[in-house]
Amino acid sequence: MRREIYDSDHEAFRKSVREFMERSVIPNLDSYVENKAFPRELWLAAGEQGLLGLGIPEEYGGSGAEDFRFAAVLGEETSKVVAALNSCWGIHSDTVVPYFVELGTEEQKKRWLPGIASGEILCAIGMTEPSGGSDLAALKTTAVRDGDEWVINGSKTFITNGYSADLVLVAAKTSPDKKARGISLFAVETTKEGFSRGRKLDKVGQEESDTAELFFDNVRVTDAELIGELDHGFIHMMQWLPQERLGSAISNVAHAKQILEETLVYTKEREAFGQPVGTFQHNKFLLAELFTQIEVAEAYVDKCVMAHVRGELTAIDAAKAKWWAAQAQSEVLDRCVQLHGGYGFMNEYRVGRAWRDARITKIWAGSNEIMKELIGRDLGL
Amino acid sequence: MRREIYDSDHEAFRKSVREFMERSVIPNLDSYVENKAFPRELWLAAGEQGLLGLGIPEEYGGSGAEDFRFAAVLGEETSKVVAALNSCWGIHSDTVVPYFVELGTEEQKKRWLPGIASGEILCAIGMTEPSGGSDLAALKTTAVRDGDEWVINGSKTFITNGYSADLVLVAAKTSPDKKARGISLFAVETTKEGFSRGRKLDKVGQEESDTAELFFDNVRVTDAELIGELDHGFIHMMQWLPQERLGSAISNVAHAKQILEETLVYTKEREAFGQPVGTFQHNKFLLAELFTQIEVAEAYVDKCVMAHVRGELTAIDAAKAKWWAAQAQSEVLDRCVQLHGGYGFMNEYRVGRAWRDARITKIWAGSNEIMKELIGRDLGL
Amino acid sequence: MRREIYDSDHEAFRKSVREFMERSVIPNLDSYVENKAFPRELWLAAGEQGLLGLGIPEEYGGSGAEDFRFAAVLGEETSKVVAALNSCWGIHSDTVVPYFVELGTEEQKKRWLPGIASGEILCAIGMTEPSGGSDLAALKTTAVRDGDEWVINGSKTFITNGYSADLVLVAAKTSPDKKARGISLFAVETTKEGFSRGRKLDKVGQEESDTAELFFDNVRVTDAELIGELDHGFIHMMQWLPQERLGSAISNVAHAKQILEETLVYTKEREAFGQPVGTFQHNKFLLAELFTQIEVAEAYVDKCVMAHVRGELTAIDAAKAKWWAAQAQSEVLDRCVQLHGGYGFMNEYRVGRAWRDARITKIWAGSNEIMKELIGRDLGL
Amino acid sequence: MRREIYDSDHEAFRKSVREFMERSVIPNLDSYVENKAFPRELWLAAGEQGLLGLGIPEEYGGSGAEDFRFAAVLGEETSKVVAALNSCWGIHSDTVVPYFVELGTEEQKKRWLPGIASGEILCAIGMTEPSGGSDLAALKTTAVRDGDEWVINGSKTFITNGYSADLVLVAAKTSPDKKARGISLFAVETTKEGFSRGRKLDKVGQEESDTAELFFDNVRVTDAELIGELDHGFIHMMQWLPQERLGSAISNVAHAKQILEETLVYTKEREAFGQPVGTFQHNKFLLAELFTQIEVAEAYVDKCVMAHVRGELTAIDAAKAKWWAAQAQSEVLDRCVQLHGGYGFMNEYRVGRAWRDARITKIWAGSNEIMKELIGRDLGL
Repeated sequence: MRREIYDSDHEAFRKSVREFMERSVIPNLDSYVENKAFPRELWLAAGEQGLLGLGIPEEYGGSGAEDFRFAAVLGEETSKVVAALNSCWGIHSDTVVPYFVELGTEEQKKRWLPGIASGEILCAIGMTEPSGGSDLAALKTTAVRDGDEWVINGSKTFITNGYSADLVLVAAKTSPDKKARGISLFAVETTKEGFSRGRKLDKVGQEESDTAELFFDNVRVTDAELIGELDHGFIHMMQWLPQERLGSAISNVAHAKQILEETLVYTKEREAFGQPVGTFQHNKFLLAELFTQIEVAEAYVDKCVMAHVRGELTAIDAAKAKWWAAQAQSEVLDRCVQLHGGYGFMNEYRVGRAWRDARITKIWAGSNEIMKELIGRDLGL
Repeated sequence: MRREIYDSDHEAFRKSVREFMERSVIPNLDSYVENKAFPRELWLAAGEQGLLGLGIPEEYGGSGAEDFRFAAVLGEETSKVVAALNSCWGIHSDTVVPYFVELGTEEQKKRWLPGIASGEILCAIGMTEPSGGSDLAALKTTAVRDGDEWVINGSKTFITNGYSADLVLVAAKTSPDKKARGISLFAVETTKEGFSRGRKLDKVGQEESDTAELFFDNVRVTDAELIGELDHGFIHMMQWLPQERLGSAISNVAHAKQILEETLVYTKEREAFGQPVGTFQHNKFLLAELFTQIEVAEAYVDKCVMAHVRGELTAIDAAKAKWWAAQAQSEVLDRCVQLHGGYGFMNEYRVGRAWRDARITKIWAGSNEIMKELIGRDLGL
Repeated sequence: MRREIYDSDHEAFRKSVREFMERSVIPNLDSYVENKAFPRELWLAAGEQGLLGLGIPEEYGGSGAEDFRFAAVLGEETSKVVAALNSCWGIHSDTVVPYFVELGTEEQKKRWLPGIASGEILCAIGMTEPSGGSDLAALKTTAVRDGDEWVINGSKTFITNGYSADLVLVAAKTSPDKKARGISLFAVETTKEGFSRGRKLDKVGQEESDTAELFFDNVRVTDAELIGELDHGFIHMMQWLPQERLGSAISNVAHAKQILEETLVYTKEREAFGQPVGTFQHNKFLLAELFTQIEVAEAYVDKCVMAHVRGELTAIDAAKAKWWAAQAQSEVLDRCVQLHGGYGFMNEYRVGRAWRDARITKIWAGSNEIMKELIGRDLGL
Repeated sequence: MRREIYDSDHEAFRKSVREFMERSVIPNLDSYVENKAFPRELWLAAGEQGLLGLGIPEEYGGSGAEDFRFAAVLGEETSKVVAALNSCWGIHSDTVVPYFVELGTEEQKKRWLPGIASGEILCAIGMTEPSGGSDLAALKTTAVRDGDEWVINGSKTFITNGYSADLVLVAAKTSPDKKARGISLFAVETTKEGFSRGRKLDKVGQEESDTAELFFDNVRVTDAELIGELDHGFIHMMQWLPQERLGSAISNVAHAKQILEETLVYTKEREAFGQPVGTFQHNKFLLAELFTQIEVAEAYVDKCVMAHVRGELTAIDAAKAKWWAAQAQSEVLDRCVQLHGGYGFMNEYRVGRAWRDARITKIWAGSNEIMKELIGRDLGL
């Protein structure tokens, strides 16, 4: 069934993204794995192509594409090629940018947005801490007022782009006694004294993205680096989590669908016992199930995209899209591995790598369990 | 998330259907179970309300509602009250009517459509045979030419409305050597000599619908009762199966969603170990999952409805909607029973009955396995 | 793989039970459904055959079979024929009898055990209450001391054998302020003034068993009817729940295995699209899965039986066996229905009825959720 | 519930294996990953400890432990520490050794068994080919008679121990026109001219084991290297596959159980939202389910072990154990990852690595689909 949410402008943009991928990304896939990072040149090339500043107004160097569908198209096409790149770009552009655009002062916008759009300033967001997982209210990082400055102490972990970031949006407690209501956000340039990073984390999948632990040891910032209102960080984060979760859902579906389509091709070519393996009834039915599963998930995510475009997407619907898409992605990719037989266990085939890459999506950006908690509460339970 | 496919006209119609249900159906639910049938008065009342002839042009006594969404609304509201009524009405109005409207001669339309719209002529369709299940090509019922007449012999089973039908659309082999390409459709009035019915079948669920075996012993019809082209019955049936399957999917989702909502209310009221059972985290997460599951299925089915309204629904997409919705319905209702504890096993609670009613939807109108076969073939397997 | 837990004595007993079934039960299956009860003659015949008093010492009219495997064999063979009969006999013999044998005074044993063994005294157990479900600590039925007597007030629901029982073992609060530690057990003869029963409950399955609500309106008993120690009822019940749960697990596996074997036969005989339906690869793999699933469950339950024979079965292992076997039974039977196509939805085929019968096993005797709670606690959570 | 199949001799042996692991394996786990191989010193140490020759008669340097339970204990304890080591040792000792012991000539036994027992001769088995997967009948490797010699040509892939093996048992077609009935087995020393190896394969998991592609380019052997009867290779392989599959099942269960127990500990220590994460009801129930699932699988596998000890294990029961255990392992480990939250995606935590390691077990040694095919055939389908 035809997807109905994208028009010719979106499809033209999709085409340009694909060309970028073929030109600048696909030839270098192996080197990203080896280096456990995407090189700065790729960021700069993407910036030049206008891929990093879709949500940034033109006056600050972006494309000013208010229509979220362009971001969705970018997320889909990137995820199809390598999920980790979407993780890195998504954090940079879809997760961090809105804080600056929506909450930043004019000065802050001028200071950072052009560099973000061009890829010269690479962003990360520091929410998760070693001790706390998804429990934002339990943050231990503090920002203590000292004269005109804030002194930040603490550490953050699982930070995508953390190893190479130039600018980290950090959540810290400014009023520790007020729990979730005492959190503020600070933009911390990673050249600051007292800032340091751990090694690149050795992950189960998405090796291409640099993920790191960040340490703040008496890092000093001023009100010029405070993003949004003091003590309102939790509320600010809550506001932008739905978009992040929707972005995750979009990526999950596109990623799994792409691998599924490649798997279908494989099962038509690979023969065993005298026939293409896909034509055995068990596999045929399985593939029928998987395509249905993905298309059903896609229909729901597409509906959420349109709700978001209209400004109507609720946190609850984003949560539904997020956990459902992650679950579908995991299940589909596990079966795709199986359909590849022994080759599914080899990293040279994309499917095994994709299966590993996908394992994080049920966990991050609020685990599936957290999503169910939110949905359950919304049901009045 | 708001459903987007229905506008105010559809919602006004929905309201009128609900009123009809409250007035004419809900007070009599117990008696339908006892009698294993819906009484003719109910059919006549529905006819008078215009519910039986949505797809019949006004000149033949119908409402001429070309927009399939009105049928979808009717299917949803009926299924919410009692699934078996939707089964009976669906066969009558959505399955049988199109054959007459699209393939019938002017004479045939005048002869039957007004009575169908009014509820005076109650319809059934005779495809399935005791020996054949979903394998239409293996039909054993024959219609043999004898002078100007066709002589029909054979039997049909699992026929919804079979016990009370006045008119049965029968698939019979007119060119037995041509397999599927030798099937024709005949409209057989049940007053015909040689026609007889078995007893009402004792079913696992949907006791309210009369389902019966039908026997044709030298039943004689003429070309005036031939519907569509000679030997083209299989093609005709293939053409209308997608609408039947979509109708099934619509009903499945609406039925399960209604019971799920009632279950949510129950789990808020019922207490155990000192708290509402729905607030235990296990149940809370489960309910979160079930609501997500239903809303995701609904999004896909809604998308199919719009494709059908535009005339674009393929047999494959209808197959996907059909099996997915049936599976979701079964899973959701099984959990709803569990959430009712011991009361879920009592027929006086709607949930147990709903669970039984739903068991057939993975089987009829082409079993889920047949759906997967179709989808798999479409994938080139 | 050969089951190893039964020797030739058990198999000889199994043969005699089968003969009893063929002679006395199978010819009357339809009438049990119609009457929603097993007739007293059947109980008396079973008593004469020695089937009702396996666990009763010979001096009180029983067989004195201390080896639980005889009860297990009886449970299996009965469940294969009609699950509801096992429910009724299981409550009578495996659930109620141990209270009398282990806790009863000499006088109590003489008074009731011979009649229980012969089938003249039909037993039920009254734990569950309308408001409380599995939460025994929340019992509302009270037994208040009045002179030399206890005056019982309250009601019980979902009581198997409730409609025909002569003797009901009732759990009632004797020290309401002590919660679970203030419950006592009383043997209440149903001829007592103030005792009454509701109608036979209309259930989703197991129609053959009479299940009823029981009412106690100032029913007076004496210490002669107190079973076990005052205020120790909860402890007494906890002690015997493992055997009840193991009995349930045994029945679940035997029941599902029998229907699965019958389904295999069906799928070899039933043809569609020119071949036996079981030989389609999808169904072939499915049947392979189902047989594996049942045999794996059986291995675990058998292991539990041997632990019980050695006196080592813990409440936790019984809980594991109970929920796992119930889940396996439900899943297997749902697939067996599907493998029957439309006939699976007809009550005249055993499979649909079996599917309905099995739905209660995930709920009763402590729901699967309660089992997981117990297991989780045992894990230290 | 106590496992009943192991007595004090087995447990003493288990203790010695554990000590070996703690002394010789655990300190070096990281280096195995880095080198993508276990070093020869480890093999020699294991040989000295008597771990490599359990099934080799004492006269040829082994332990002559005819009781398969010692191999089972070794498999369990090794798998608990690092699954890949069990893969390597299992192929060497449980898969290859029986061919020499049961089919070898006296000369062959003397020539190779002592070195196999000591770890000086490292073994691999070459069945799978790039084009054929599980379809042994489609072998393309040939051994053509040339005078007194056989000339082997072809290639093998996914060969565990392939990169370091000294001796490869190769399946090759000696009578190509006789399909499966024309296969013979040859012991090929890897010093032979014409033998070469590809690079170590880059796998999704089990990085510690060296897996490689092997190439045979006019490798010449004589009848002295023919193992078993000419053209009987397929039958020989069929005979030993059940033991290999049982070994796989044993490893799967022990591996998953170990990680599950570690996960339980983790969920008691790790806190979120103010309480240990394992104590949230959702996780508590989940852990209850996982422990049940593993113990049930273990009961079945244990039963198979005893059947094998008695010489009664059928290929079908081994197939059931193999696929069921692999499925259980995958499901359990996926949930264990989830219970670790973000840390589950880090390779420094054992759970993520274990999850990856386990992915191959549904595929190798006959995929789960092949197992179901065998079981289905045995059902007469």
